[in-house]
Amino acid sequence: MLFELDRDTKVPLYVQIRHKVRELILSGALPAESRLPATHELAKALGVNRTTVVTAYRGLWREGLVQGRAGGGTVVALPGRKREAPHPIDQPLLWDDLYTERVPALFPWTSAPRLPADEEPLNFARGDPATDLLPLDSMWEGLSEVKRQGHAPLRYAPPQGDPELRARLAESLELRGMRASPSQILVLSGGGQGIYLAAQAFLERGDGVVVESPTHPEALRIFRAVGAQLRPVPLDEGGLRLDVLEETLSRLRPKLIYVTPTFHNPTGITMPTERRERLLELACRYRVPILEDDPFPGLCYDGESVPPLAALDRQGTVLHLSTLSKVFAPGLRIGWLLAPRPVAERLTLLKSSIDLCTSPLSQAVATALFPRRLSRHLETIVPIYRSRRDTLCAALVREGANALRFSRPAGGLFLWATLAHDLLAEPLLEEALAEGVSFLPGAPFFPWGYGGERALRLNFAAHPKATIEEGMRRLGSALRRTARRARQGRRECEREEAREEAFV
Amino acid sequence: MLFELDRDTKVPLYVQIRHKVRELILSGALPAESRLPATHELAKALGVNRTTVVTAYRGLWREGLVQGRAGGGTVVALPGRKREAPHPIDQPLLWDDLYTERVPALFPWTSAPRLPADEEPLNFARGDPATDLLPLDSMWEGLSEVKRQGHAPLRYAPPQGDPELRARLAESLELRGMRASPSQILVLSGGGQGIYLAAQAFLERGDGVVVESPTHPEALRIFRAVGAQLRPVPLDEGGLRLDVLEETLSRLRPKLIYVTPTFHNPTGITMPTERRERLLELACRYRVPILEDDPFPGLCYDGESVPPLAALDRQGTVLHLSTLSKVFAPGLRIGWLLAPRPVAERLTLLKSSIDLCTSPLSQAVATALFPRRLSRHLETIVPIYRSRRDTLCAALVREGANALRFSRPAGGLFLWATLAHDLLAEPLLEEALAEGVSFLPGAPFFPWGYGGERALRLNFAAHPKATIEEGMRRLGSALRRTARRARQGRRECEREEAREEAFV
Repeated sequence: MLFELDRDTKVPLYVQIRHKVRELILSGALPAESRLPATHELAKALGVNRTTVVTAYRGLWREGLVQGRAGGGTVVALPGRKREAPHPIDQPLLWDDLYTERVPALFPWTSAPRLPADEEPLNFARGDPATDLLPLDSMWEGLSEVKRQGHAPLRYAPPQGDPELRARLAESLELRGMRASPSQILVLSGGGQGIYLAAQAFLERGDGVVVESPTHPEALRIFRAVGAQLRPVPLDEGGLRLDVLEETLSRLRPKLIYVTPTFHNPTGITMPTERRERLLELACRYRVPILEDDPFPGLCYDGESVPPLAALDRQGTVLHLSTLSKVFAPGLRIGWLLAPRPVAERLTLLKSSIDLCTSPLSQAVATALFPRRLSRHLETIVPIYRSRRDTLCAALVREGANALRFSRPAGGLFLWATLAHDLLAEPLLEEALAEGVSFLPGAPFFPWGYGGERALRLNFAAHPKATIEEGMRRLGSALRRTARRARQGRRECEREEAREEAFV
Repeated sequence: MLFELDRDTKVPLYVQIRHKVRELILSGALPAESRLPATHELAKALGVNRTTVVTAYRGLWREGLVQGRAGGGTVVALPGRKREAPHPIDQPLLWDDLYTERVPALFPWTSAPRLPADEEPLNFARGDPATDLLPLDSMWEGLSEVKRQGHAPLRYAPPQGDPELRARLAESLELRGMRASPSQILVLSGGGQGIYLAAQAFLERGDGVVVESPTHPEALRIFRAVGAQLRPVPLDEGGLRLDVLEETLSRLRPKLIYVTPTFHNPTGITMPTERRERLLELACRYRVPILEDDPFPGLCYDGESVPPLAALDRQGTVLHLSTLSKVFAPGLRIGWLLAPRPVAERLTLLKSSIDLCTSPLSQAVATALFPRRLSRHLETIVPIYRSRRDTLCAALVREGANALRFSRPAGGLFLWATLAHDLLAEPLLEEALAEGVSFLPGAPFFPWGYGGERALRLNFAAHPKATIEEGMRRLGSALRRTARRARQGRRECEREEAREEAFV
């Protein structure tokens, strides 16, 4: 066995030797069980130091291509691996045997009926805003601006995002009190991509991640798919319970805290400033980064807006995530992450493996929205959404006074309601679907698929008032029927128990 | 310690018990070292079977929240984990300590100088087609069709892709001999996303993946980031060497074969039909799925087109991946994967965690391209690209006759050239950049970052003939200067050796 080494390149000699020997093994030139030359012989033949050959052989050993034989030098071998007996060629491939654990499973413990499509008329399960209120003309005006850019939006964009869009995003974040330069911003293909990137970047299989209980099901699915351990922390009326968080941080050493402190999805809770300060302090003390999800910037209906965690953060502990999906249109698939600059750069490397860059066409349209067209749109929709929320609250009080309770959300798109003790959300959903109205049942929002059996989430923003009234009337009748059935079921149980006792 | 169980829900009782006890532990109500009730006691108190409590405790034990104490029942404990001493709050977070191994490293063994941006004039390193030849008017016509769809492109699209686009893609795949229904197609945010999804779905850390050597660097980066073992197989003039592949399959049991059989990037090689049949047979015998990358559908300049692997596959072994990036515009970020239907559905679950769905705006524009606008564009560009290729080949022969050799690629966008023995690509690139012309050096295309020190890839399609002529004139002078320097270097070495010998 001899080959030539290339002394002109910067490739280390041990790498070259390892590579050449590997080639000889895999091409069959060095069959299994055959002996490699002794290290000092090969070193002499190639004119290199013996350590160089040893290092190369060690690499091959780590790959499982060679093994040491007591008293017999190094032989070609694949320890524990025989030549696999080939299968017949006429059988189809069994893909189900091939998937990794990353292919996400469905939620355990919930078998929610298939939900209707977004477009269906009385769908309060949907996650999108009122797209029919979108200023189409202004959108197409924006597209004409794109048109004037000629071929640019048809080329690859920088993986971190279009510089002009990042500049406009930085300005808009600065207006909300965050210190943001374009180099700290990563443009995303929707907000969910930020959760995905953070999970990939910071969570190995088995690492803990703090999540609110309840929280956004899509986030749970992403964390589960990387094999993370969910560390749920319950909420009270001020958001994340910091006493439980501190126990979790000190004893379970999670690697990431995922939190939606403003208009929390699904509960609508907003964390007060003072608690935000203490949350940051805890994260800093235990050296755990926070991923702050802020999907509804500007969708505030009551009271004053509270500063985002990123605006209060002084130690660079917060990744701030937001999106155009809820304040403008989900179809643009535009989100952004504000991070310390080196973190933004690392995450850009990850993102470029996922989709190279966010659609430059979508980015160009988004750029044309900032700041004027977007703020005009917000001025239009905020009063409309506020009054739709009030309509929904009034209708719920009217239709479900004894059967459910809820707090009026101060922002966002969703209302979270809890049913009375004897009612469950899934049977209610079945009745509701029969009435042509739908909502999201609560269980999938809970990290362990348990805890939301009596809860439901309703979208108050996507439908006009008349639709809300009609939908809640139908939900009310579904509620009454579910309550009746529950009472019947209990009576039957009691009768059955009585019968059984009679038999004893 | 007592709590209530909910007997109305479908949530198993052991899950409820585990959840309640976890809550008590994490809220501090059950401090470390405190004893849980004996299983039979708790079972009695809650009115459940003792096994139910045992199962719940076992779950808590697996989470590390409790531990068995010899003779002392079950106590709250986190084995091997003490309360972590908190850090001071005024120190910045050290992000570099926090990343997982998934955050991709740069290529080892190459320190290529920073390459110029795509727009720079004599950039032959670029990966994109001639975007200036794009039919902008026809594109904007397409966008007007999108405009007529009103709000639809602003809503969420189905994660698997717009049904109309999938239908048109299926038709176009059928025309190339593949059996394709819309339900087998997954729309992607660019072709690279298909490689990423396949890596996530089929490769655990340590699993082997067969790659051509050389191959597309982005694919190598994706496979490295999931921690896969690269199993390089060299090419000959007919593509992948099947003798080496069979050894690799039988002895190293890789989980995936990634191959670009048509107009291979970077070498331009096309695998003949007969070898494709044998490749499929091997994949089938060893039960290893093939990811067929086909980035240049229709960009064929000489000879007859060869059927894609997916058209020859009878056992459902092939995932067929393609994109609009090379045949139309990379800025649309549209790719697609053809797969057996259940595989397409599983991969859709994965994709929905990554970006929910590909930009509906981009999808709508892509839909309007199929089939008429796209085939009209191909009719325009194929003769232009063919003659640009010929211009490049002629110029290379003229400028680099003694210094490099290459084969004329029959399709695609790239030409692969190998320098004469005494020349290296990286010093040549430095000289070339000084002349204002650039190319991609070969090393990053090789799985071990080694093997391409004398190779370079040139894009022949993106520039008009005059630019190609000018670029190759400058590359020629860079070549001559590099050769001169190499000779000088050798002479100096010889003189130095002579001096050293004189000292001996």
